[in-house]
Amino acid sequence: MNHSINDGFESISPALLQPSICAGVQVRTALFEQVIDGLSALITSLRDPETEILRFPPVMSRDQLVKSGYLHSFPHLLGCVSSLQGDESQVRGSLERSNGDWIAGLSATELVLSPAACYPLYPLVATRKPVPGSGLLFDVASYCFRREATHEVDRLQAFRMREYVCIGTSEQSLDFRARWIPKAEELARRLGLPCRIAPASDPFFGRAGRLAAMIQVEQALKFELLIPVHSQDQPTACMSFNYHRDHFGTTWDLQTDTGETAHTACVAFGLDRLALALFATHGLDLQVWPATARNALSV
Amino acid sequence: MNHSINDGFESISPALLQPSICAGVQVRTALFEQVIDGLSALITSLRDPETEILRFPPVMSRDQLVKSGYLHSFPHLLGCVSSLQGDESQVRGSLERSNGDWIAGLSATELVLSPAACYPLYPLVATRKPVPGSGLLFDVASYCFRREATHEVDRLQAFRMREYVCIGTSEQSLDFRARWIPKAEELARRLGLPCRIAPASDPFFGRAGRLAAMIQVEQALKFELLIPVHSQDQPTACMSFNYHRDHFGTTWDLQTDTGETAHTACVAFGLDRLALALFATHGLDLQVWPATARNALSV
Repeated sequence: MNHSINDGFESISPALLQPSICAGVQVRTALFEQVIDGLSALITSLRDPETEILRFPPVMSRDQLVKSGYLHSFPHLLGCVSSLQGDESQVRGSLERSNGDWIAGLSATELVLSPAACYPLYPLVATRKPVPGSGLLFDVASYCFRREATHEVDRLQAFRMREYVCIGTSEQSLDFRARWIPKAEELARRLGLPCRIAPASDPFFGRAGRLAAMIQVEQALKFELLIPVHSQDQPTACMSFNYHRDHFGTTWDLQTDTGETAHTACVAFGLDRLALALFATHGLDLQVWPATARNALSV
Repeated sequence: MNHSINDGFESISPALLQPSICAGVQVRTALFEQVIDGLSALITSLRDPETEILRFPPVMSRDQLVKSGYLHSFPHLLGCVSSLQGDESQVRGSLERSNGDWIAGLSATELVLSPAACYPLYPLVATRKPVPGSGLLFDVASYCFRREATHEVDRLQAFRMREYVCIGTSEQSLDFRARWIPKAEELARRLGLPCRIAPASDPFFGRAGRLAAMIQVEQALKFELLIPVHSQDQPTACMSFNYHRDHFGTTWDLQTDTGETAHTACVAFGLDRLALALFATHGLDLQVWPATARNALSV
């Protein structure tokens, strides 16, 4: 069975993602993970020298995410961690509520699920010395969660994000992003993936959010690398290239060694979406994938 | 700086885990991840033939976990995913509550954080054909979450668990576990880790839980491989060997091809704890680790 783009990629083969009773929370197979591992190693091979590697758990501080503006911009996507808190008798009390409604006994913890890999980075870097004149580069990754309202094959609630991040001056951040756009296109070419770069905006919440999205496009703050996965007309964003200006620098008082507020930029790789794009483009049989893609992924 | 066991391993070097404002939710460094990757590959090299590989996201179905008995046994450790639900005006309503108390607007989703890697496996296998006469073997992994009340260096809230699981007859499950105990001891020996195997029980909730724990020990359902991490007197459980009898088989109606209820067993590797045990035992400088350990881990 070959899910080529022409067939449409409307449902995901259980050879890749096993069925789950929760939409967007699929189980990954060995075949799928082999490609994820290949993608991870390929992305690593493109890493700039002097890049610090950090790996984040799937949960992070709620206060830090709220302070980053996430609640304001994307309240509909946020997943919070709740638990039955208190001592033994309080927990038992929740369990023994009338009608078995233990859910009502849950209360929010200090944790949320990370919606993107780089959010925990900025407050961490803020605890260190000022950003040196040459800027800082990071390689971060985490399992991410977004409470998506729709669940197309390429819109998972739980997914893995890898990011390269630059913290420095405005020029350094913009240069970093400008270098990565052609590098990412070249990566897609090696993988035999048809792609295009397009200006983009984040899925900001509500009516005010539509204005924020317009400004984001107008100021060219976000670009995406789009690859057809389930549709040619609505290709899927598999990478993004983001310039945050001084948003995180101001929020976390990140300063360069000249005392100016740091600017930041990131390039984000949606690993699960890239893997789905590969299977949608080349089919389920790795043996018949283009040689350049197989070499690049060591599959 | 060498955190040998004799020094005690009371605090974790930022060379391994970076500080976090949330206890038990640390950021992993490149040095730490290098050892995690080595451990993962080493465990893979010991995998039985004919083992199906599945990788789970850090969240799973709440209904499935509750049906598995987790809420009854470990309500104090459960992390649930809550979100601001409803349409735009409802979400805005939560955000605009008096006193900025948006937290009160959270409601539980259908998802929880997985507390162990194998819980989502049993309902998945139950959707397939009956378990064949030869039994089934699985290699599963996920980031796990437990709402721990204390946060010693070896008690993380967010941690990675790798498991081998056997689903079959009682004999197959017990044989599987009996084979894995000496294999695990040999693995620890190759890594230069002092260890012992001990009967163990799970941290069941409350007064009734203490009885469940006694029965678990009495019936030899759980063993742990213990390695000193922060203390010689209170060594840390870095692997466990569990026989579930027909608990999951009955819960999910898992049947063997002769129509009997399947029994299950698992061996669980606490990857972060194993890495901490290695650093606690051999220090932070991989160059001076024993040659057998470095070879085994390819570091």
